[in-house]
Amino acid sequence: MIRLSQLFFTTLREDPAEAEVASHRLLLRAGYIRRAGAGLYSWLPLGLRVRRNIERIVREEMEAVGAQEVLFPGLLPREPYERSGRWTEYGDGIFTLQDRKGADHLLAPTHEEVFTLLVQDLVSSYKSLPLTIFQIQDKYRDEARPRAGLLRAREFTMKDAYSFDVSDAGLDASYRVQRDAYERIFQRLGLDYVIVDADAGAMGGSKSEEFMHPTAVGEDTIVRTAGGYAANVEKFQTVVPEPIAIEGQADAVVRETPDTPTIETLVADANARFPREDGREWTAADTLKNVVLRLTHPDGSRELVVIGLPGDRGVDEKRVEVAFQPAEVTAADEDDFAANPGLVKGYIGPWSASGAVLGEKAATGIRYLLDKRIVDGTSWITGANEPGKHVFGLVAGRDFVGDGWVEAADVRAGDPAPDGSGPVTLERGMEVGHVFQLGRKFADALGLKVLDENGKLVTVTMGSYGIGVTRNLAAIAEIARDDKGLIWPREVAPFDVHVVATGRDQAIFGVAETVVAELEARGLEVLFDDRPKVSPGVKFGDAELIGVPQIVIVGRDAVEGSVEVWDRATGERQKVEIGELQAALGR
Amino acid sequence: MIRLSQLFFTTLREDPAEAEVASHRLLLRAGYIRRAGAGLYSWLPLGLRVRRNIERIVREEMEAVGAQEVLFPGLLPREPYERSGRWTEYGDGIFTLQDRKGADHLLAPTHEEVFTLLVQDLVSSYKSLPLTIFQIQDKYRDEARPRAGLLRAREFTMKDAYSFDVSDAGLDASYRVQRDAYERIFQRLGLDYVIVDADAGAMGGSKSEEFMHPTAVGEDTIVRTAGGYAANVEKFQTVVPEPIAIEGQADAVVRETPDTPTIETLVADANARFPREDGREWTAADTLKNVVLRLTHPDGSRELVVIGLPGDRGVDEKRVEVAFQPAEVTAADEDDFAANPGLVKGYIGPWSASGAVLGEKAATGIRYLLDKRIVDGTSWITGANEPGKHVFGLVAGRDFVGDGWVEAADVRAGDPAPDGSGPVTLERGMEVGHVFQLGRKFADALGLKVLDENGKLVTVTMGSYGIGVTRNLAAIAEIARDDKGLIWPREVAPFDVHVVATGRDQAIFGVAETVVAELEARGLEVLFDDRPKVSPGVKFGDAELIGVPQIVIVGRDAVEGSVEVWDRATGERQKVEIGELQAALGR
Repeated sequence: MIRLSQLFFTTLREDPAEAEVASHRLLLRAGYIRRAGAGLYSWLPLGLRVRRNIERIVREEMEAVGAQEVLFPGLLPREPYERSGRWTEYGDGIFTLQDRKGADHLLAPTHEEVFTLLVQDLVSSYKSLPLTIFQIQDKYRDEARPRAGLLRAREFTMKDAYSFDVSDAGLDASYRVQRDAYERIFQRLGLDYVIVDADAGAMGGSKSEEFMHPTAVGEDTIVRTAGGYAANVEKFQTVVPEPIAIEGQADAVVRETPDTPTIETLVADANARFPREDGREWTAADTLKNVVLRLTHPDGSRELVVIGLPGDRGVDEKRVEVAFQPAEVTAADEDDFAANPGLVKGYIGPWSASGAVLGEKAATGIRYLLDKRIVDGTSWITGANEPGKHVFGLVAGRDFVGDGWVEAADVRAGDPAPDGSGPVTLERGMEVGHVFQLGRKFADALGLKVLDENGKLVTVTMGSYGIGVTRNLAAIAEIARDDKGLIWPREVAPFDVHVVATGRDQAIFGVAETVVAELEARGLEVLFDDRPKVSPGVKFGDAELIGVPQIVIVGRDAVEGSVEVWDRATGERQKVEIGELQAALGR
Repeated sequence: MIRLSQLFFTTLREDPAEAEVASHRLLLRAGYIRRAGAGLYSWLPLGLRVRRNIERIVREEMEAVGAQEVLFPGLLPREPYERSGRWTEYGDGIFTLQDRKGADHLLAPTHEEVFTLLVQDLVSSYKSLPLTIFQIQDKYRDEARPRAGLLRAREFTMKDAYSFDVSDAGLDASYRVQRDAYERIFQRLGLDYVIVDADAGAMGGSKSEEFMHPTAVGEDTIVRTAGGYAANVEKFQTVVPEPIAIEGQADAVVRETPDTPTIETLVADANARFPREDGREWTAADTLKNVVLRLTHPDGSRELVVIGLPGDRGVDEKRVEVAFQPAEVTAADEDDFAANPGLVKGYIGPWSASGAVLGEKAATGIRYLLDKRIVDGTSWITGANEPGKHVFGLVAGRDFVGDGWVEAADVRAGDPAPDGSGPVTLERGMEVGHVFQLGRKFADALGLKVLDENGKLVTVTMGSYGIGVTRNLAAIAEIARDDKGLIWPREVAPFDVHVVATGRDQAIFGVAETVVAELEARGLEVLFDDRPKVSPGVKFGDAELIGVPQIVIVGRDAVEGSVEVWDRATGERQKVEIGELQAALGR
């Protein structure tokens, strides 16, 4: 039992200025966490209790499927990450430092390398496999924009598990076991989730699925169909239209289109001065937009690339990141245009026959990549690579080709799903778990081999399974709340019951002590608001803010033997005899 | 229950080359930990279980005295450490890094600053005090020489607690409570300890005591008397002898003493050529040795200092470090002598009347500090500040004075204790816990004030209480062992019982499963050696190495209903009926 009069906590009446999202605001206001620096948080006793509950649930489900707990340092030498290639791949995303002898170290963002090396150290035969080991550990990422409290922090806690198998079938089985365990974890945490196909990202590997929690504050986009398709927008594959016959299409015409540097001005101008013969209006979808991006590769080298896509779509930041990873992608700036006079801002086109630069990779070193919708035979209004000029009726496959395809355009509700299950819907989501099949990437890089049944050395295949403890806590806080405060699910709540003694009558406090003692004797963890000089209103407000799911009010009627049971979620209050309290609480 | 056939562990037959001390060797050999880098360790499942047990004991004892658990980040911004002055004081001892925006951060070596700031954030009135909060957290120190496995690592786990009080008396009380809790913790851990007076070190503050575990592998020296005195050698205060009458002592004489640059050669030469009139031999104790040291201050500035002490004593590295902290102390090198021609190597003396440099601070900028035994009237043979010359009969207080006193000479068995309790003995020890009264240093630096009963703002006074979780684990391993392996105390052992099934008879394994199930039903944690094709000899060897205190051997007699209970510590084996097993185990 913890007495609120003693508890190291304080509630805030005002919304803290630093908090952008509800979970962050409430966790600060209710005295769960405090900011220690950008993306760095300190845990107060209430917060730590919730956190430990989540860790316990994760640990129980891991142990239930035979995964064994280990623990690695947070500070690690460069060498293993050098061997896997990730020291450079991570770029600015990791914290690095040198020790007093000048040796490079990092604060581990994930631990694939050292898990692999540890298994290499301990395991030499297929007989010791399959094996799944995990840790619950602090991770560090030097986020460009730490935000939303625990949702995107620079120090955060994860459970990361790794499976080790000899065969692909073994990996499939280990993966399935972890995936199932994750489903149980999220059910216990009370978090809705969608399992989506995901990009394997910097990890390499093949199959990868994310557990996405649908929420407006999520940074990801979930693309789904009623027919069962579900993917992270990063992973969405465009359905390629059928090509159109080129023969019989009119020749392209270059036209003076002064002051039309945007799609909007171009379409307006085209409709006003060059209307279609069939009377239909030109729309943005008839234009071919060419976007210039700058890639910065992990080795520091830079490259420009131009993406051609239908003018009614934008470039999706996440999709384009995935398309070019591990390079960092930014918009091209004035310097880039100045250095490449062939790129006529506002009038860039793909046409090469006119002597314009694009598409002639050899001449400019700039790759020209196309959205998959720009199939042969499609006809476009696009830039003529000269100031104030556009070309009409430029036909893909006849007048221009790209240097390749790219999945970079944004995805829209109504787009067809790649599996044929119909039009997609979009939803914001937050990644709360990630399972993927790394395969042999790390084992190859670090030389993890074991003897198989025939005494032959074979490379081990690995799976990687991550779940963010602190992020999940925030995700729960984001949904488990109302306008008065938090409403924790039972399994993660900091306490089972919050007993509030009201009034100034000593006898009431005496009864409250007895009630608390009885609840404790039943194994319940109790928060006891025993503050003598605090008004009932303030106590109730604090109880609502803190969010223990069941509240017992010990007030005036207590001396006659009855208390009130208050359900935090429904707001329902019910008068019960003290003798019936356990039953009323359902405990 | 964990099956040994599934456990992620391996025992090593050979002593690992990297291990210098027994605990390190055994923790590696028995599969508890692995090295991940210099002073960085990974925890295997067995090691993690022991570690969690130690954490649990520490947590229980903290909670029993009302301390509340919180948790801070390991990565922290520079700012609070700048305000306390410790950013520079720590020098090379901490890991620092810059984030992607160039902002300085550190990996916290201790957390005084952020504890102080958190309390400042949450507490505004004396009514919320006293308060003691703690965390169990990883700490980082960039040790010059990480060594002895977990005993001196660069990443290690500590419980650090801090108390906050309004009054000095309150601090005394909070300090006492923690000190008592520490005694209980060490008793539960099965670790002998001596509570010694300690230097408060870089932390500032006043009263400071260390819990020293006496062990040959300790880096500290415990100074004790039978009469109850106990101090870290760093803290030992020399008993100052009575001064001697100066009047009537003969004048000092400078003598040619070529080729006597050491105390040994000087004493031999003096006895051969300048024997004492009373026939007694000259000894090293009659000489005054002058040692030149270089101090490097945290701001990078350097200074030479000369220490005069009796020639039969050396300068104690730890004592001299404390004397000059936070400066770093090294021996002066050839460059230092070259830059200060007044320092005649091998013939340095304190004499200033002759025109020699020492003692004339203004002339050279070199401080000359004396051991406290060099009291007025003592007469010495010492260097004459000229090559090949010494001076005899140089009297302190008449012929020379120092710029101050210094506690730098080594302490010897037989030296009188400062409290008058008799001659001291010396013993190697390891610091396993530390309690100290910080006082108002951090509260002053960071502005932690609260309103007192009279509505006046007063600065809070703090205590700091640290105990090394991972170091204590190693300290236990250092004593809880024999030549065959580890012998864990009950409370920290990775399992309660280790059940070993021997032989090839399926029936035996069947009985073993039943025995294990029964032990588990009683709430015991069982390690079950179920490996089917491993010989009894190997299994017993592994059991001895792993060190679970009670082993149950299920062998041939099992089918007739009896097993053997093997006490790991005494080696005693006792045949018992399965029905009597619980009783025999005393559980």
